[in-house]
Amino acid sequence: MLVGSVEAGGTKFVCAVGDEDYRIQDQIKFPTTTPKETLQKVVDYFLQFDIKAIGIASFGPIEIRKNSPKYGYVTKTPKPGWEDTNFVGFIKAQLDLPIFFTTDVNGSAYGEYVMSLLANEKIDSLVYYTIGTGVGGGAVIGGDFVGSVGHPEMGHTLLKRHPDDIDFTGVCPFHGDCLEGLVSGPTFEKRVGRPGKDVPLTDHVWDVMAYYIAQAALQATLLFRPDKIVFGGGVISEPVLQKVRVEFAKILNGYVSLPDLDKYIVMPEVKGNGSATLGDFALANKLLRE
Amino acid sequence: MLVGSVEAGGTKFVCAVGDEDYRIQDQIKFPTTTPKETLQKVVDYFLQFDIKAIGIASFGPIEIRKNSPKYGYVTKTPKPGWEDTNFVGFIKAQLDLPIFFTTDVNGSAYGEYVMSLLANEKIDSLVYYTIGTGVGGGAVIGGDFVGSVGHPEMGHTLLKRHPDDIDFTGVCPFHGDCLEGLVSGPTFEKRVGRPGKDVPLTDHVWDVMAYYIAQAALQATLLFRPDKIVFGGGVISEPVLQKVRVEFAKILNGYVSLPDLDKYIVMPEVKGNGSATLGDFALANKLLRE
Repeated sequence: MLVGSVEAGGTKFVCAVGDEDYRIQDQIKFPTTTPKETLQKVVDYFLQFDIKAIGIASFGPIEIRKNSPKYGYVTKTPKPGWEDTNFVGFIKAQLDLPIFFTTDVNGSAYGEYVMSLLANEKIDSLVYYTIGTGVGGGAVIGGDFVGSVGHPEMGHTLLKRHPDDIDFTGVCPFHGDCLEGLVSGPTFEKRVGRPGKDVPLTDHVWDVMAYYIAQAALQATLLFRPDKIVFGGGVISEPVLQKVRVEFAKILNGYVSLPDLDKYIVMPEVKGNGSATLGDFALANKLLRE
Repeated sequence: MLVGSVEAGGTKFVCAVGDEDYRIQDQIKFPTTTPKETLQKVVDYFLQFDIKAIGIASFGPIEIRKNSPKYGYVTKTPKPGWEDTNFVGFIKAQLDLPIFFTTDVNGSAYGEYVMSLLANEKIDSLVYYTIGTGVGGGAVIGGDFVGSVGHPEMGHTLLKRHPDDIDFTGVCPFHGDCLEGLVSGPTFEKRVGRPGKDVPLTDHVWDVMAYYIAQAALQATLLFRPDKIVFGGGVISEPVLQKVRVEFAKILNGYVSLPDLDKYIVMPEVKGNGSATLGDFALANKLLRE
Protein backbone atom coordinates (compact mmCIF):
# COMPACT_ATOMS: atom_id res chain seq x y z
CA MET A 1 0.00 0.00 0.00
CA LEU A 2 1.35 3.40 -1.02
CA VAL A 3 0.95 6.87 0.45
CA GLY A 4 2.05 10.29 -0.72
CA SER A 5 4.10 13.07 0.83
CA VAL A 6 4.17 16.72 -0.13
CA GLU A 7 6.86 18.86 1.42
CA ALA A 8 5.78 22.29 0.32
CA GLY A 9 8.46 24.91 0.71
CA GLY A 10 8.57 28.51 -0.39
CA THR A 11 11.38 27.72 -2.84
CA LYS A 12 10.71 24.13 -3.86
CA PHE A 13 8.24 21.31 -3.54
CA VAL A 14 9.30 17.73 -2.82
CA CYS A 15 6.70 15.07 -3.56
CA ALA A 16 7.29 11.44 -2.71
CA VAL A 17 5.56 8.09 -2.66
CA GLY A 18 6.22 5.71 0.18
CA ASP A 19 5.27 2.21 1.17
CA GLU A 20 3.83 1.02 4.47
CA ASP A 21 7.34 0.80 5.93
CA TYR A 22 7.84 4.50 5.14
CA ARG A 23 10.40 3.70 2.44
CA ILE A 24 10.57 6.18 -0.43
CA GLN A 25 9.53 4.45 -3.67
CA ASP A 26 9.62 7.51 -5.87
CA GLN A 27 10.40 11.19 -5.48
CA ILE A 28 10.23 14.41 -7.49
CA LYS A 29 11.34 17.99 -6.84
CA PHE A 30 10.23 21.13 -8.62
CA PRO A 31 10.43 24.86 -7.94
CA THR A 32 7.56 26.67 -6.25
CA THR A 33 5.97 28.93 -8.87
CA THR A 34 2.32 30.03 -8.92
CA PRO A 35 -0.12 28.09 -6.73
CA LYS A 36 -2.08 26.82 -9.73
CA GLU A 37 0.95 25.60 -11.64
CA THR A 38 2.69 24.15 -8.59
CA LEU A 39 -0.31 22.36 -7.13
CA GLN A 40 -1.26 20.95 -10.54
CA LYS A 41 2.21 19.39 -10.71
CA VAL A 42 1.51 17.79 -7.34
CA VAL A 43 -1.76 16.32 -8.61
CA ASP A 44 -0.24 15.14 -11.90
CA TYR A 45 2.59 13.47 -10.03
CA PHE A 46 0.35 11.51 -7.69
CA LEU A 47 -2.05 10.51 -10.49
CA GLN A 48 0.70 8.12 -11.65
CA PHE A 49 0.50 6.08 -8.44
CA ASP A 50 -2.13 4.09 -6.60
CA ILE A 51 -1.76 6.00 -3.34
CA LYS A 52 -4.31 5.77 -0.52
CA ALA A 53 -3.65 8.97 1.43
CA ILE A 54 -1.40 12.04 1.42
CA GLY A 55 0.51 13.86 4.14
CA ILE A 56 1.28 17.50 3.42
CA ALA A 57 3.86 19.53 5.35
CA SER A 58 3.54 23.08 4.10
CA PHE A 59 5.18 26.45 4.53
CA GLY A 60 2.81 28.79 6.27
CA PRO A 61 1.06 30.25 7.97
CA ILE A 62 -1.69 27.76 7.20
CA GLU A 63 -5.15 27.09 8.57
CA ILE A 64 -5.21 23.76 10.37
CA ARG A 65 -8.43 24.08 12.36
CA LYS A 66 -10.89 21.61 10.84
CA ASN A 67 -13.86 23.75 11.85
CA SER A 68 -12.59 26.81 9.98
CA PRO A 69 -14.06 27.67 6.55
CA LYS A 70 -10.45 28.28 5.54
CA TYR A 71 -9.23 24.83 6.65
CA GLY A 72 -6.50 23.64 4.32
CA TYR A 73 -5.52 27.12 3.14
CA VAL A 74 -2.16 28.82 3.06
CA THR A 75 -3.25 32.08 4.72
CA LYS A 76 -1.31 35.32 5.30
CA THR A 77 2.00 34.30 3.74
CA PRO A 78 4.30 37.01 2.38
CA LYS A 79 5.11 34.62 -0.52
CA PRO A 80 3.79 36.43 -3.64
CA GLY A 81 0.63 34.90 -5.09
CA TRP A 82 0.15 32.33 -2.35
CA GLU A 83 -1.88 34.27 0.18
CA ASP A 84 -5.30 32.69 0.68
CA THR A 85 -4.56 29.59 -1.43
CA ASN A 86 -6.86 26.60 -0.94
CA PHE A 87 -4.07 24.02 -0.93
CA VAL A 88 -6.02 21.01 0.33
CA GLY A 89 -9.12 21.95 -1.70
CA PHE A 90 -7.12 22.10 -4.94
CA ILE A 91 -5.67 18.62 -4.37
CA LYS A 92 -8.94 17.08 -3.14
CA ALA A 93 -10.82 18.34 -6.21
CA GLN A 94 -8.74 16.01 -8.39
CA LEU A 95 -7.57 13.36 -5.93
CA ASP A 96 -10.31 12.24 -3.59
CA LEU A 97 -8.06 10.91 -0.83
CA PRO A 98 -7.64 11.44 2.90
CA ILE A 99 -5.18 14.29 3.40
CA PHE A 100 -3.28 15.20 6.56
CA PHE A 101 -2.37 18.87 6.37
CA THR A 102 0.15 20.42 8.72
CA THR A 103 3.11 22.79 8.83
CA ASP A 104 6.56 21.99 7.46
CA VAL A 105 8.05 21.96 10.96
CA ASN A 106 5.22 19.83 12.35
CA GLY A 107 5.84 17.36 9.53
CA SER A 108 9.53 17.27 10.42
CA ALA A 109 8.76 16.99 14.12
CA TYR A 110 6.52 14.02 13.41
CA GLY A 111 9.14 12.38 11.21
CA GLU A 112 11.73 12.69 13.97
CA TYR A 113 9.22 11.42 16.52
CA VAL A 114 8.47 8.36 14.40
CA MET A 115 12.19 7.82 13.77
CA SER A 116 12.79 7.81 17.52
CA LEU A 117 10.04 5.26 18.05
CA LEU A 118 11.45 3.08 15.26
CA ALA A 119 14.83 3.26 17.05
CA ASN A 120 13.10 1.98 20.19
CA GLU A 121 13.71 5.19 22.08
CA LYS A 122 11.21 5.64 24.87
CA ILE A 123 9.93 8.98 23.72
CA ASP A 124 6.73 10.82 24.52
CA SER A 125 7.43 14.34 23.27
CA LEU A 126 9.73 16.14 20.89
CA VAL A 127 10.25 19.70 19.70
CA TYR A 128 11.65 20.41 16.24
CA TYR A 129 13.12 23.77 15.23
CA THR A 130 14.28 24.72 11.77
CA ILE A 131 16.88 27.48 11.65
CA GLY A 132 17.20 28.37 7.99
CA THR A 133 15.91 31.10 5.72
CA GLY A 134 13.12 31.32 8.26
CA VAL A 135 12.84 30.00 11.80
CA GLY A 136 9.98 27.88 13.07
CA GLY A 137 9.18 25.11 15.45
CA GLY A 138 6.71 22.30 15.92
CA ALA A 139 5.97 19.98 18.80
CA VAL A 140 4.63 16.46 19.18
CA ILE A 141 3.30 15.27 22.53
CA GLY A 142 2.10 11.70 22.83
CA GLY A 143 1.75 11.42 19.06
CA ASP A 144 -0.32 14.60 18.68
CA PHE A 145 0.64 18.06 17.51
CA VAL A 146 0.52 21.01 19.86
CA GLY A 147 -1.73 23.95 19.00
CA SER A 148 -5.42 24.66 19.61
CA VAL A 149 -6.17 28.02 18.00
CA GLY A 150 -3.56 27.43 15.29
CA HIS A 151 -0.10 25.99 14.83
CA PRO A 152 2.92 27.12 16.82
CA GLU A 153 5.08 29.96 15.51
CA MET A 154 8.08 29.36 17.74
CA GLY A 155 10.38 31.49 15.61
CA HIS A 156 9.02 34.81 16.82
CA THR A 157 9.57 34.96 20.57
CA LEU A 158 11.77 37.73 21.98
CA LEU A 159 15.21 37.04 23.42
CA LYS A 160 17.73 38.48 25.81
CA ARG A 161 20.21 40.24 23.58
CA HIS A 162 23.85 39.21 23.53
CA PRO A 163 26.00 42.05 24.91
CA ASP A 164 28.16 42.03 21.75
CA ASP A 165 25.12 42.19 19.47
CA ILE A 166 23.12 45.03 21.01
CA ASP A 167 23.18 47.25 17.94
CA PHE A 168 21.96 44.63 15.46
CA THR A 169 18.34 45.46 14.67
CA GLY A 170 17.36 42.02 13.37
CA VAL A 171 15.84 41.03 10.03
CA CYS A 172 12.26 39.99 10.85
CA PRO A 173 9.89 42.28 8.95
CA PHE A 174 7.27 41.78 11.68
CA HIS A 175 9.33 41.92 14.88
CA GLY A 176 12.86 43.07 14.10
CA ASP A 177 14.94 41.25 16.67
CA CYS A 178 12.78 38.21 17.46
CA LEU A 179 14.39 34.75 17.26
CA GLU A 180 13.98 34.60 13.47
CA GLY A 181 15.17 38.18 13.20
CA LEU A 182 18.35 37.29 15.07
CA VAL A 183 19.33 33.81 13.85
CA SER A 184 17.80 33.11 10.44
CA GLY A 185 20.23 32.54 7.57
CA PRO A 186 19.91 36.07 6.12
CA THR A 187 21.29 37.56 9.37
CA PHE A 188 24.80 36.57 8.26
CA GLU A 189 24.71 38.85 5.22
CA LYS A 190 23.39 41.62 7.42
CA ARG A 191 25.92 41.14 10.25
CA VAL A 192 29.11 40.13 8.46
CA GLY A 193 28.40 40.74 4.77
CA ARG A 194 28.61 37.16 3.56
CA PRO A 195 26.52 33.99 3.76
CA GLY A 196 26.77 31.82 6.86
CA LYS A 197 28.43 28.96 4.99
CA ASP A 198 31.40 31.27 4.37
CA VAL A 199 31.73 32.32 8.01
CA PRO A 200 34.12 30.05 9.94
CA LEU A 201 32.94 28.68 13.26
CA THR A 202 35.78 30.53 14.96
CA ASP A 203 34.06 33.82 14.07
CA HIS A 204 32.50 35.40 17.17
CA VAL A 205 29.19 35.76 15.32
CA TRP A 206 28.68 32.04 15.87
CA ASP A 207 28.92 32.55 19.63
CA VAL A 208 26.17 35.12 19.36
CA MET A 209 24.08 32.77 17.23
CA ALA A 210 24.62 29.90 19.67
CA TYR A 211 23.53 32.10 22.59
CA TYR A 212 20.24 32.89 20.85
CA ILE A 213 19.58 29.36 19.62
CA ALA A 214 20.25 28.16 23.17
CA GLN A 215 17.49 30.49 24.34
CA ALA A 216 15.08 28.80 21.92
CA ALA A 217 16.11 25.48 23.45
CA LEU A 218 15.62 26.99 26.91
CA GLN A 219 12.09 28.11 26.05
CA ALA A 220 11.19 24.71 24.63
CA THR A 221 12.71 23.01 27.68
CA LEU A 222 10.98 25.09 30.32
CA LEU A 223 7.58 25.26 28.63
CA PHE A 224 7.36 21.69 27.27
CA ARG A 225 9.89 19.60 29.19
CA PRO A 226 10.19 17.42 26.09
CA ASP A 227 12.23 14.25 25.72
CA LYS A 228 14.36 15.92 23.09
CA ILE A 229 14.82 18.99 20.93
CA VAL A 230 15.84 18.57 17.30
CA PHE A 231 17.40 21.40 15.31
CA GLY A 232 17.37 21.29 11.52
CA GLY A 233 17.75 23.85 8.77
CA GLY A 234 20.63 25.32 6.81
CA VAL A 235 22.21 27.21 9.72
CA ILE A 236 22.55 24.08 11.85
CA SER A 237 25.43 21.62 11.92
CA GLU A 238 26.81 19.37 14.64
CA PRO A 239 29.64 21.82 15.47
CA VAL A 240 27.08 24.62 15.80
CA LEU A 241 24.98 22.47 18.13
CA GLN A 242 28.07 21.82 20.23
CA LYS A 243 28.29 25.55 20.80
CA VAL A 244 24.55 25.71 21.47
CA ARG A 245 24.82 23.02 24.15
CA VAL A 246 27.56 24.94 25.92
CA GLU A 247 25.49 28.15 25.95
CA PHE A 248 22.37 26.22 26.93
CA ALA A 249 24.09 24.65 29.94
CA LYS A 250 25.24 28.10 31.02
CA ILE A 251 21.86 29.80 30.85
CA LEU A 252 19.94 26.84 32.33
CA ASN A 253 22.46 26.76 35.18
CA GLY A 254 21.42 23.29 36.32
CA TYR A 255 17.91 24.45 37.13
CA VAL A 256 16.15 21.30 35.91
CA SER A 257 17.58 17.85 35.36
CA LEU A 258 17.72 16.77 31.75
CA PRO A 259 19.00 13.89 29.65
CA ASP A 260 22.63 14.07 28.53
CA LEU A 261 22.70 17.22 26.36
CA ASP A 262 24.35 15.32 23.48
CA LYS A 263 21.17 13.27 23.27
CA TYR A 264 18.79 16.06 24.16
CA ILE A 265 19.78 18.84 21.73
CA VAL A 266 20.33 17.00 18.49
CA MET A 267 20.50 17.09 14.70
CA PRO A 268 17.72 15.29 12.78
CA GLU A 269 18.04 11.51 12.85
CA VAL A 270 16.51 11.25 9.39
CA LYS A 271 19.22 12.02 6.89
CA GLY A 272 19.06 14.04 3.66
CA ASN A 273 16.46 16.51 4.94
CA GLY A 274 14.00 13.63 4.95
CA SER A 275 12.27 14.27 8.28
CA ALA A 276 9.18 15.88 6.79
CA THR A 277 8.79 13.21 4.12
CA LEU A 278 8.94 10.46 6.72
CA GLY A 279 6.54 12.45 8.89
CA ASP A 280 4.12 12.85 5.98
CA PHE A 281 4.16 9.13 5.23
CA ALA A 282 3.48 8.35 8.89
CA LEU A 283 0.70 10.95 9.10
CA ALA A 284 -0.92 9.58 5.94
CA ASN A 285 -0.78 6.09 7.40
CA LYS A 286 -2.18 7.39 10.68
CA LEU A 287 -5.15 8.83 8.78
CA LEU A 288 -5.81 5.45 7.17
CA ARG A 289 -5.70 3.66 10.52
CA GLU A 290 -8.19 6.05 12.13
CA MET B 1 -18.59 10.92 47.67
CA LEU B 2 -15.82 13.13 49.02
CA VAL B 3 -12.31 13.86 47.80
CA GLY B 4 -9.43 15.82 49.30
CA SER B 5 -7.30 18.70 48.07
CA VAL B 6 -3.88 19.75 49.31
CA GLU B 7 -2.55 23.06 48.07
CA ALA B 8 0.99 22.93 49.38
CA GLY B 9 2.72 26.30 49.35
CA GLY B 10 6.05 27.35 50.71
CA THR B 11 4.33 29.62 53.26
CA LYS B 12 1.05 27.86 53.98
CA PHE B 13 -0.90 24.70 53.28
CA VAL B 14 -4.58 24.74 52.36
CA CYS B 15 -6.41 21.44 52.73
CA ALA B 16 -10.00 21.00 51.65
CA VAL B 17 -12.67 18.37 51.25
CA GLY B 18 -14.99 18.53 48.27
CA ASP B 19 -18.02 16.68 46.97
CA GLU B 20 -18.49 15.21 43.50
CA ASP B 21 -19.65 18.61 42.22
CA TYR B 22 -16.33 20.10 43.32
CA ARG B 23 -17.99 22.10 46.09
CA ILE B 24 -15.85 22.77 49.15
CA GLN B 25 -17.38 21.03 52.19
CA ASP B 26 -14.60 21.85 54.62
CA GLN B 27 -11.30 23.67 54.54
CA ILE B 28 -8.30 24.30 56.80
CA LYS B 29 -5.16 26.43 56.47
CA PHE B 30 -1.95 26.17 58.44
CA PRO B 31 1.59 27.49 58.07
CA THR B 32 4.27 25.41 56.35
CA THR B 33 6.74 24.34 59.04
CA THR B 34 8.85 21.17 58.98
CA PRO B 35 7.85 18.44 56.52
CA LYS B 36 7.03 15.99 59.29
CA GLU B 37 4.86 18.38 61.27
CA THR B 38 3.15 19.86 58.22
CA LEU B 39 2.43 16.58 56.45
CA GLN B 40 1.16 15.00 59.69
CA LYS B 41 -1.35 17.85 59.92
CA VAL B 42 -2.49 16.97 56.40
CA VAL B 43 -3.00 13.33 57.38
CA ASP B 44 -4.75 14.19 60.65
CA TYR B 45 -7.08 16.55 58.84
CA PHE B 46 -8.17 14.02 56.22
CA LEU B 47 -8.55 11.23 58.78
CA GLN B 48 -11.70 13.07 59.91
CA PHE B 49 -13.42 12.52 56.57
CA ASP B 50 -14.43 9.58 54.43
CA ILE B 51 -12.54 10.73 51.37
CA LYS B 52 -11.83 8.44 48.39
CA ALA B 53 -8.86 10.16 46.72
CA ILE B 54 -6.61 13.19 47.08
CA GLY B 55 -5.29 15.75 44.65
CA ILE B 56 -2.08 17.49 45.68
CA ALA B 57 -0.80 20.70 44.06
CA SER B 58 2.62 21.33 45.54
CA PHE B 59 5.38 23.89 45.46
CA GLY B 60 8.41 22.47 43.76
CA PRO B 61 10.41 21.32 42.11
CA ILE B 62 8.79 17.92 42.51
CA GLU B 63 9.26 14.52 40.91
CA ILE B 64 6.19 13.64 38.85
CA ARG B 65 7.56 10.81 36.72
CA LYS B 66 5.84 7.65 37.88
CA ASN B 67 8.83 5.50 36.88
CA SER B 68 11.26 7.45 39.07
CA PRO B 69 12.30 6.05 42.46
CA LYS B 70 11.78 9.59 43.72
CA TYR B 71 8.21 9.82 42.42
CA GLY B 72 6.11 11.90 44.81
CA TYR B 73 9.06 13.77 46.31
CA VAL B 74 9.72 17.46 46.71
CA THR B 75 13.22 17.49 45.25
CA LYS B 76 15.77 20.32 45.01
CA THR B 77 13.72 23.07 46.67
CA PRO B 78 15.58 25.94 48.36
CA LYS B 79 12.89 25.81 51.12
CA PRO B 80 14.81 24.83 54.29
CA GLY B 81 14.22 21.26 55.43
CA TRP B 82 12.04 20.27 52.50
CA GLU B 83 14.65 19.08 50.01
CA ASP B 84 14.18 15.41 49.21
CA THR B 85 10.89 15.04 51.08
CA ASN B 86 8.73 12.03 50.24
CA PHE B 87 5.47 13.96 50.18
CA VAL B 88 3.24 11.30 48.61
CA GLY B 89 4.92 8.47 50.52
CA PHE B 90 4.30 10.16 53.87
CA ILE B 91 0.59 10.59 53.11
CA LYS B 92 0.17 7.12 51.59
CA ALA B 93 1.75 5.46 54.63
CA GLN B 94 -1.21 6.60 56.73
CA LEU B 95 -3.96 7.13 54.16
CA ASP B 96 -4.06 4.37 51.60
CA LEU B 97 -5.85 6.33 48.88
CA PRO B 98 -5.26 7.17 45.23
CA ILE B 99 -3.24 10.40 45.08
CA PHE B 100 -2.75 12.71 42.11
CA PHE B 101 0.48 14.64 42.62
CA THR B 102 1.34 17.67 40.55
CA THR B 103 2.73 21.19 40.79
CA ASP B 104 0.87 24.15 42.27
CA VAL B 105 0.59 25.82 38.87
CA ASN B 106 -0.52 22.61 37.19
CA GLY B 107 -3.23 22.28 39.84
CA SER B 108 -4.34 25.83 39.15
CA ALA B 109 -4.17 25.29 35.40
CA TYR B 110 -6.38 22.24 35.75
CA GLY B 111 -8.86 24.10 37.97
CA GLU B 112 -9.16 26.87 35.39
CA TYR B 113 -9.48 24.29 32.61
CA VAL B 114 -12.31 22.53 34.45
CA MET B 115 -13.97 25.88 35.23
CA SER B 116 -13.91 26.73 31.54
CA LEU B 117 -15.51 23.41 30.66
CA LEU B 118 -18.16 23.89 33.35
CA ALA B 119 -18.89 27.29 31.78
CA ASN B 120 -19.42 25.51 28.45
CA GLU B 121 -16.44 27.18 26.86
CA LYS B 122 -15.11 25.14 23.96
CA ILE B 123 -11.62 24.82 25.29
CA ASP B 124 -8.87 22.36 24.48
CA SER B 125 -5.80 23.95 26.02
CA LEU B 126 -4.88 26.49 28.66
CA VAL B 127 -1.70 27.92 30.14
CA TYR B 128 -1.64 29.21 33.72
CA TYR B 129 1.07 31.51 35.06
CA THR B 130 1.43 32.65 38.62
CA ILE B 131 3.30 35.91 39.10
CA GLY B 132 3.86 36.20 42.84
CA THR B 133 6.72 35.58 45.23
CA GLY B 134 7.87 33.17 42.57
CA VAL B 135 6.90 32.79 38.93
CA GLY B 136 5.80 29.55 37.35
CA GLY B 137 3.51 28.16 34.72
CA GLY B 138 1.59 25.01 33.91
CA ALA B 139 -0.24 23.87 30.81
CA VAL B 140 -3.17 21.59 30.09
CA ILE B 141 -3.72 20.22 26.60
CA GLY B 142 -6.77 18.06 25.97
CA GLY B 143 -7.13 17.35 29.69
CA ASP B 144 -3.52 16.29 30.18
CA PHE B 145 -0.57 18.12 31.65
CA VAL B 146 2.42 19.04 29.54
CA GLY B 147 5.83 17.67 30.49
CA SER B 148 7.64 14.42 29.72
CA VAL B 149 10.97 14.56 31.54
CA GLY B 150 9.49 16.67 34.34
CA HIS B 151 7.06 19.52 34.90
CA PRO B 152 7.37 22.87 33.16
CA GLU B 153 9.36 25.66 34.79
CA MET B 154 8.03 28.52 32.70
CA GLY B 155 9.26 31.17 35.10
CA HIS B 156 12.90 30.93 34.07
CA THR B 157 13.09 31.79 30.38
CA LEU B 158 15.16 34.79 29.31
CA LEU B 159 13.58 37.98 28.01
CA LYS B 160 14.33 40.99 25.88
CA ARG B 161 15.16 43.69 28.38
CA HIS B 162 13.09 46.85 28.55
CA PRO B 163 15.24 49.85 27.51
CA ASP B 164 14.41 51.65 30.78
CA ASP B 165 15.34 48.62 32.89
CA ILE B 166 18.71 47.66 31.46
CA ASP B 167 20.64 48.13 34.70
CA PHE B 168 18.38 46.02 36.88
CA THR B 169 20.18 42.74 37.54
CA GLY B 170 17.11 40.72 38.54
CA VAL B 171 16.44 38.73 41.69
CA CYS B 172 16.56 35.08 40.61
CA PRO B 173 19.34 33.33 42.53
CA PHE B 174 19.78 30.91 39.62
CA HIS B 175 19.47 33.14 36.57
CA GLY B 176 19.49 36.79 37.62
CA ASP B 177 17.28 38.43 35.03
CA CYS B 178 15.08 35.56 33.90
CA LEU B 179 11.29 36.06 33.92
CA GLU B 180 11.06 35.34 37.67
CA GLY B 181 14.10 37.49 38.29
CA LEU B 182 12.42 40.42 36.52
CA VAL B 183 8.74 40.25 37.54
CA SER B 184 8.33 38.33 40.80
CA GLY B 185 6.92 40.27 43.73
CA PRO B 186 10.29 40.88 45.42
CA THR B 187 11.48 42.87 42.38
CA PHE B 188 9.44 45.85 43.59
CA GLU B 189 11.49 46.20 46.79
CA LYS B 190 14.64 45.92 44.73
CA ARG B 191 13.59 48.39 42.04
CA VAL B 192 11.59 51.00 43.90
CA GLY B 193 12.16 50.26 47.57
CA ARG B 194 8.62 49.30 48.53
CA PRO B 195 6.23 46.40 47.98
CA GLY B 196 4.25 46.24 44.75
CA LYS B 197 0.94 46.84 46.49
CA ASP B 198 2.23 50.32 47.44
CA VAL B 199 3.33 51.20 43.92
CA PRO B 200 0.58 52.98 41.97
CA LEU B 201 -0.20 51.70 38.48
CA THR B 202 0.82 55.07 37.10
CA ASP B 203 4.42 54.32 38.12
CA HIS B 204 6.55 53.52 35.08
CA VAL B 205 7.78 50.33 36.76
CA TRP B 206 4.41 48.80 35.91
CA ASP B 207 5.02 49.46 32.20
CA VAL B 208 8.29 47.59 32.52
CA MET B 209 6.53 44.73 34.35
CA ALA B 210 3.77 44.60 31.74
CA TYR B 211 6.35 44.42 28.95
CA TYR B 212 7.99 41.38 30.54
CA ILE B 213 4.74 39.63 31.47
CA ALA B 214 3.59 40.20 27.88
CA GLN B 215 6.71 38.32 26.74
CA ALA B 216 5.67 35.36 28.88
CA ALA B 217 2.27 35.49 27.16
CA LEU B 218 4.06 35.71 23.81
CA GLN B 219 6.13 32.60 24.54
CA ALA B 220 3.05 30.66 25.66
CA THR B 221 1.17 31.85 22.58
CA LEU B 222 3.81 31.00 20.00
CA LEU B 223 4.89 27.68 21.52
CA PHE B 224 1.47 26.32 22.59
CA ARG B 225 -1.17 28.30 20.66
CA PRO B 226 -3.50 27.69 23.60
CA ASP B 227 -7.15 28.69 23.84
CA LYS B 228 -6.35 31.01 26.71
CA ILE B 229 -3.67 32.18 29.11
CA VAL B 230 -4.59 32.75 32.76
CA PHE B 231 -2.46 34.91 35.04
CA GLY B 232 -2.77 34.57 38.80
CA GLY B 233 -0.58 35.46 41.76
CA GLY B 234 -0.15 38.50 43.96
CA VAL B 235 1.38 40.76 41.31
CA ILE B 236 -1.60 40.34 38.96
CA SER B 237 -4.80 42.39 38.87
CA GLU B 238 -7.19 43.25 36.06
CA PRO B 239 -5.65 46.72 35.57
CA VAL B 240 -2.20 45.11 35.33
CA LEU B 241 -3.49 42.67 32.73
CA GLN B 242 -4.93 45.58 30.76
CA LYS B 243 -1.39 46.91 30.49
CA VAL B 244 -0.10 43.45 29.62
CA ARG B 245 -2.61 43.12 26.76
CA VAL B 246 -1.47 46.43 25.29
CA GLU B 247 2.19 45.39 25.41
CA PHE B 248 1.34 41.92 24.10
CA ALA B 249 -0.51 43.33 21.08
CA LYS B 250 2.50 45.54 20.33
CA ILE B 251 5.10 42.78 20.43
CA LEU B 252 2.93 40.20 18.65
CA ASN B 253 2.29 42.79 15.93
CA GLY B 254 -0.65 40.88 14.48
CA TYR B 255 1.53 37.93 13.58
CA VAL B 256 -1.01 35.25 14.46
CA SER B 257 -4.75 35.57 14.82
CA LEU B 258 -6.04 35.11 18.34
CA PRO B 259 -9.27 35.33 20.28
CA ASP B 260 -10.24 38.76 21.61
CA LEU B 261 -7.38 39.58 24.01
CA ASP B 262 -9.84 40.39 26.83
CA LYS B 263 -10.88 36.74 26.71
CA TYR B 264 -7.44 35.35 25.91
CA ILE B 265 -5.22 36.92 28.58
CA VAL B 266 -7.33 36.68 31.69
CA MET B 267 -7.50 36.57 35.48
CA PRO B 268 -8.51 33.26 37.10
CA GLU B 269 -12.21 32.47 36.75
CA VAL B 270 -12.21 30.66 40.10
CA LYS B 271 -12.41 33.29 42.81
CA GLY B 272 -10.60 33.48 46.17
CA ASN B 273 -7.42 31.81 44.93
CA GLY B 274 -9.44 28.62 44.56
CA SER B 275 -8.14 27.41 41.19
CA ALA B 276 -5.77 24.82 42.63
CA THR B 277 -8.35 23.45 45.08
CA LEU B 278 -10.88 23.01 42.27
CA GLY B 279 -8.15 21.46 40.13
CA ASP B 280 -7.21 19.06 42.92
CA PHE B 281 -10.83 17.96 43.38
CA ALA B 282 -11.16 17.35 39.65
CA LEU B 283 -7.85 15.47 39.47
CA ALA B 284 -8.85 13.28 42.44
CA ASN B 285 -12.13 12.50 40.73
CA LYS B 286 -10.30 11.81 37.48
CA LEU B 287 -8.15 9.25 39.31
CA LEU B 288 -11.25 7.51 40.61
CA ARG B 289 -12.81 7.35 37.14
CA GLU B 290 -9.70 5.80 35.60
